Amino acid sequence: MAEPLFNRLALLGIGLIGSSIARVARERGDLARTIVANARTQATLDRVMELGIADECEIDPARAVQGADCVIFCAPVGAYAALAEAIGPHLAPGAIVSDVGSTKQSVIRDIGPHLPEGVHFVPAHPMAGTEFSGPDAGFAGLFKGRWCLLTPVPGTDQDAISRMRTFWERCGAMVSVMDAAHHDRVVAIVSHLPHLIAFTICGTADDLADETRQEVLQFAASGFRDFTRIAASDPTMWRDVFLNNREALLEMLARFTEDAQAMARAVRWGDAAYIEDKVLRGRKIRQALIDINQA
Amino acid sequence: MAEPLFNRLALLGIGLIGSSIARVARERGDLARTIVANARTQATLDRVMELGIADECEIDPARAVQGADCVIFCAPVGAYAALAEAIGPHLAPGAIVSDVGSTKQSVIRDIGPHLPEGVHFVPAHPMAGTEFSGPDAGFAGLFKGRWCLLTPVPGTDQDAISRMRTFWERCGAMVSVMDAAHHDRVVAIVSHLPHLIAFTICGTADDLADETRQEVLQFAASGFRDFTRIAASDPTMWRDVFLNNREALLEMLARFTEDAQAMARAVRWGDAAYIEDKVLRGRKIRQALIDINQA
Repeated sequence: MAEPLFNRLALLGIGLIGSSIARVARERGDLARTIVANARTQATLDRVMELGIADECEIDPARAVQGADCVIFCAPVGAYAALAEAIGPHLAPGAIVSDVGSTKQSVIRDIGPHLPEGVHFVPAHPMAGTEFSGPDAGFAGLFKGRWCLLTPVPGTDQDAISRMRTFWERCGAMVSVMDAAHHDRVVAIVSHLPHLIAFTICGTADDLADETRQEVLQFAASGFRDFTRIAASDPTMWRDVFLNNREALLEMLARFTEDAQAMARAVRWGDAAYIEDKVLRGRKIRQALIDINQA
Repeated sequence: MAEPLFNRLALLGIGLIGSSIARVARERGDLARTIVANARTQATLDRVMELGIADECEIDPARAVQGADCVIFCAPVGAYAALAEAIGPHLAPGAIVSDVGSTKQSVIRDIGPHLPEGVHFVPAHPMAGTEFSGPDAGFAGLFKGRWCLLTPVPGTDQDAISRMRTFWERCGAMVSVMDAAHHDRVVAIVSHLPHLIAFTICGTADDLADETRQEVLQFAASGFRDFTRIAASDPTMWRDVFLNNREALLEMLARFTEDAQAMARAVRWGDAAYIEDKVLRGRKIRQALIDINQA
């Protein structure tokens, strides 16, 4: 076994992602010698001890990070600012602070100012998840073959970046480094907008008259079902994601809405060539995904 | 084996759906004694003969339907009016005419007027498909466990309806009878709108700058991918579906757009409770689908 990357790893939040990290760390042994779990409620921490996925549990985040050489925020991104303020003064010199949030500019905005000199900040976004949440939902294979994007600000210590790269690679992920603003635009179109659309169409269907609503469920297999698959996600997490990637999400939604309106116009006026062209583009993109084994 | 339902079954169009019907008929033997295939091109019919899925091939639709006691339109719905005009005078007295189109009011509008007295019209919509097309794409199991909706106009011969019900049940489908206008609204929300959205978001993503477009493909797994799955469909078929279910589709798109704009407003103004409520509704609908084994 390789030397553990860290001596003491503190996980602030121990839901689906945090508990999956804890499980990988337990299973491999080369991520950290000691795993400290922090959560908002004692009930969650009691469950974590029962599951045996952490060495120590600590309900006070300031105490949880004491002596830790790696601290990872694993709570919904809306909770980051308050958490960062609470732990800032208690961070060990030279510690690496990271996170797992789906929005990265907001994370830099919310955590960055609270970190003392000499602490290294490497924001991260492991692109993995299921529709389940809580410490029971995690599993060690969650990150296997998935992307983890690192978005450090310019000037970040290269050694800290490279240790977080190794950390995620040991979790089974493929790692890529990119600018936070660029990250936020990419995830706005590949993830946040599809989720917003999925939540919305579920509401639209649910608002239909009673009889039709029954049949929406009955005949869902013809397309609607694929949208509900991604609509079964954690409400707090997604609320925070939308609110913390506001600009990019609204821009992508505006682009999509313009395109949908253009399609509506083509349908209304019978512009067959326009419709055919759009369907062909969808097919082409699907084929491109198949070609790169992402379908 | 039960007595064959029909003596001579004519399939006008022999793509994914038509060739799947032909294959079931061949496999079971109790749908029809003789299967006649019609297509627009001789190349398709040559392929059908090679595949051995029809007893006779006939490029002239008027000749294909001669002596047939069951005629099923299996072409894109945009081709139905011209086909119906061509075959009308050649239909055998007492024959049943049906179809497999995804829009039903337009089919009644386009086929109905061309049918002579004494011919029974039972419009049908088997809700099954894949992203592939053509006579090679069909398979006998396509309709197994899927719904087939019949939308006969009031006054249609009950025996004709019940024979088409038996026909689709023997194909493995679950059959439901409903009003054509109601059908068009239900499929607009469960199928046509999701497809329109899927085609549109593929175009929106494809219009992004080159660098982002690459990453859309690379990171598609986080949501976008689920949308492309249904975007890989046949362009001619979908063009015709959109144009022939115009009113219901535009109404559902308008409702969805209002809801998406309300969500955009909540994101812009930070209305956390509104967003959470919508995400919860998505989750509830997903759960309802799981509960009725449609997920």
